[in-house]
Amino acid sequence: MQFAKPLPSYLVQRYHGWKATTYSENQAWYRRLATEGQRPRAMVISCCDSRVHVTSIFGADQGEFFIHRNIANLVPPYEPDGERHGTSAAIEYAVTALKVAHLIVLGHSQCGGVQGCIDMCKGNAPQLEAKESFVGRWMDILKPRFELVAEIDDSTEQARQFERQAVVASLENLMTFPFVESAVKAGELSIHGLWTDIGEGALEFYDPKEKKFALV
Amino acid sequence: MQFAKPLPSYLVQRYHGWKATTYSENQAWYRRLATEGQRPRAMVISCCDSRVHVTSIFGADQGEFFIHRNIANLVPPYEPDGERHGTSAAIEYAVTALKVAHLIVLGHSQCGGVQGCIDMCKGNAPQLEAKESFVGRWMDILKPRFELVAEIDDSTEQARQFERQAVVASLENLMTFPFVESAVKAGELSIHGLWTDIGEGALEFYDPKEKKFALV
Amino acid sequence: MQFAKPLPSYLVQRYHGWKATTYSENQAWYRRLATEGQRPRAMVISCCDSRVHVTSIFGADQGEFFIHRNIANLVPPYEPDGERHGTSAAIEYAVTALKVAHLIVLGHSQCGGVQGCIDMCKGNAPQLEAKESFVGRWMDILKPRFELVAEIDDSTEQARQFERQAVVASLENLMTFPFVESAVKAGELSIHGLWTDIGEGALEFYDPKEKKFALV
Amino acid sequence: MQFAKPLPSYLVQRYHGWKATTYSENQAWYRRLATEGQRPRAMVISCCDSRVHVTSIFGADQGEFFIHRNIANLVPPYEPDGERHGTSAAIEYAVTALKVAHLIVLGHSQCGGVQGCIDMCKGNAPQLEAKESFVGRWMDILKPRFELVAEIDDSTEQARQFERQAVVASLENLMTFPFVESAVKAGELSIHGLWTDIGEGALEFYDPKEKKFALV
Repeated sequence: MQFAKPLPSYLVQRYHGWKATTYSENQAWYRRLATEGQRPRAMVISCCDSRVHVTSIFGADQGEFFIHRNIANLVPPYEPDGERHGTSAAIEYAVTALKVAHLIVLGHSQCGGVQGCIDMCKGNAPQLEAKESFVGRWMDILKPRFELVAEIDDSTEQARQFERQAVVASLENLMTFPFVESAVKAGELSIHGLWTDIGEGALEFYDPKEKKFALV
Repeated sequence: MQFAKPLPSYLVQRYHGWKATTYSENQAWYRRLATEGQRPRAMVISCCDSRVHVTSIFGADQGEFFIHRNIANLVPPYEPDGERHGTSAAIEYAVTALKVAHLIVLGHSQCGGVQGCIDMCKGNAPQLEAKESFVGRWMDILKPRFELVAEIDDSTEQARQFERQAVVASLENLMTFPFVESAVKAGELSIHGLWTDIGEGALEFYDPKEKKFALV
Repeated sequence: MQFAKPLPSYLVQRYHGWKATTYSENQAWYRRLATEGQRPRAMVISCCDSRVHVTSIFGADQGEFFIHRNIANLVPPYEPDGERHGTSAAIEYAVTALKVAHLIVLGHSQCGGVQGCIDMCKGNAPQLEAKESFVGRWMDILKPRFELVAEIDDSTEQARQFERQAVVASLENLMTFPFVESAVKAGELSIHGLWTDIGEGALEFYDPKEKKFALV
Repeated sequence: MQFAKPLPSYLVQRYHGWKATTYSENQAWYRRLATEGQRPRAMVISCCDSRVHVTSIFGADQGEFFIHRNIANLVPPYEPDGERHGTSAAIEYAVTALKVAHLIVLGHSQCGGVQGCIDMCKGNAPQLEAKESFVGRWMDILKPRFELVAEIDDSTEQARQFERQAVVASLENLMTFPFVESAVKAGELSIHGLWTDIGEGALEFYDPKEKKFALV
């Protein structure tokens, strides 16, 4: 790999600062985590977006959350076709190997992936419809639900509702995985849907009784 | 989604603590991030492992890193076949839409995914070889490189070397994406390979001149 | 400008070193900063003193902090009289054009400007009282607060308390700028007072509840 | 100051990292700087812009440079009228109290202040012409030189030339300060003009013989 470069020096400096403080103060715990292996209580599926910090929001430290992050926190449906499925692999590992107790899907406001899907559904993003568009093909997971928000006139409100739909879609797709379904039914796993407003710091959860999101 | 449950109360409590402190202290910045959109300097591809905290190691706050996390921090090769490729979608979004300046692949010690791949390569994990195993099919990305470490007798050392190979494989696969290659060649993107020892807090970078990893 | 001279060679040498390393490693980011413009998260107002390195203390790299440095990190009161006000111009640009989220005033120990003000207040520095003394007229901003520390016998402790008063004075004067006040009240800007001990590397923040400085 | 807030926690964390590494490694030097006072070799006048890092470019450490930063790195003419002149105070302190050997004015590309001045000169920025505009009144220092670049058609090239004029204007104004002029003539002080291209990392110096800027 002739193209790889050394780490930028400002990150090297910050790393050494972490090593001398946070690591140093927690060395015994980190060593134990290394020796005994991880034992996370929950898996979190959230977006790659730089503005979403699940560990910060939940005050989580090393060892607590098994975190998968992809575009728009989407879970594809169960499809054991022998192809590569990164998200499905992460879920399989968390549920069957680590036996996490909670599986949390965390959506968020101002999601670029969801906005791209809206543009695509409205015919305004031909580049995302191209076969070669990885973002477009990934957002196809959410596309069928656009009809649920198509009538909303206000574009901001439409996007926020569609972001919440992305969470619900992921929850529903999760249940198509046999090992998720059986763990949930056996009471060994609970699944949770969340949506956060980046600017206001609000957090909502999906309430299955009311079939809508409510403030935590 | 009748199966979804409310958030466990210990997480609700922590969230309210975050809202009253970290959010409150940074409200102006979070609102600005919401209004103006994200502008991360780097994309980080790391493992879902609960023991790897890239934001902690690098003192990064909301808005700095666009983070994709999957099993074993793997990048598959470029394959624009119209199927769903979550990792490729994240890379495409970071490089072409967000135009990140750095792309960092962060591997780590005691990686369960890499260990599974070793077991599979040694014929000790038939369940991972099944077509239905998402983890097995995902780790196929790394499989061809097993010959580079097959001769190492010490199993711990073998695993550590194979974890580093996972980083190098990802770097090489990254360069098969036309938009990554052109951005690197134009000097608009630099790629970096890292490996961290969880227990010791050590950080190594891939040195392309020496073709090996060295301490940061 | 017949008097200008070429750069001393030791600085030329260091610049070439920076170009070949730090610049080279971060070229993609620097180009993006040049193309897209700056988007700093915070403005810092600190002293010109060569011993105060705000970027070092906070591990900040290019693009993070908009930094104004003057004698004794002073902010004058709002005075829109059509005259030249360099500090006020910097604050106006940061708050109204860049819309920074944080405004940090950083004071420090052993401040020569503050010491000059003490000398002046005690009648020991007639040269600073001359109309022509730019330093004297600049330090007039702080002068009225001398009564708050006049009773302190120990001259070292008196200076340290007066340095902290310089920070508080700047915070109070900041709030006389209408655009600062309205941004603070709208939750779009937060202001922070800090004081650092150069020799000990300590950092204190102004706690508005206790109305005094406390260790970070 | 009821409005002041504690430091954001990500900066607290980074500060502690700095304390445990950079400070710790250099404690003896920092203590000596505190005890003996600063003794900088040069004063640097640069812009507040977050993309300009004079300490990084010149590998400078604590104690080396006395740094004044304002909008567009401008020096106003000598005007001992008894009013507050922050820039003049910094220059007076550096030259007469600290007796620096070098005085460096560092301009840069993509300067927002210089662009504002161009807009103002072209009649496109009425808000900057208002008496209340601190940025506008500050940029008045540069305004008379617009005629030198008014004929340049290409707006990017015009801005770059005007940024260089801001450096020359500052050098000329520096020489109107009697204590600067006498120190320069006595061979105790040399003055230098620089301009840096942020995206390319280039550095130019003002060559008084050729009366133009040339690469370092």
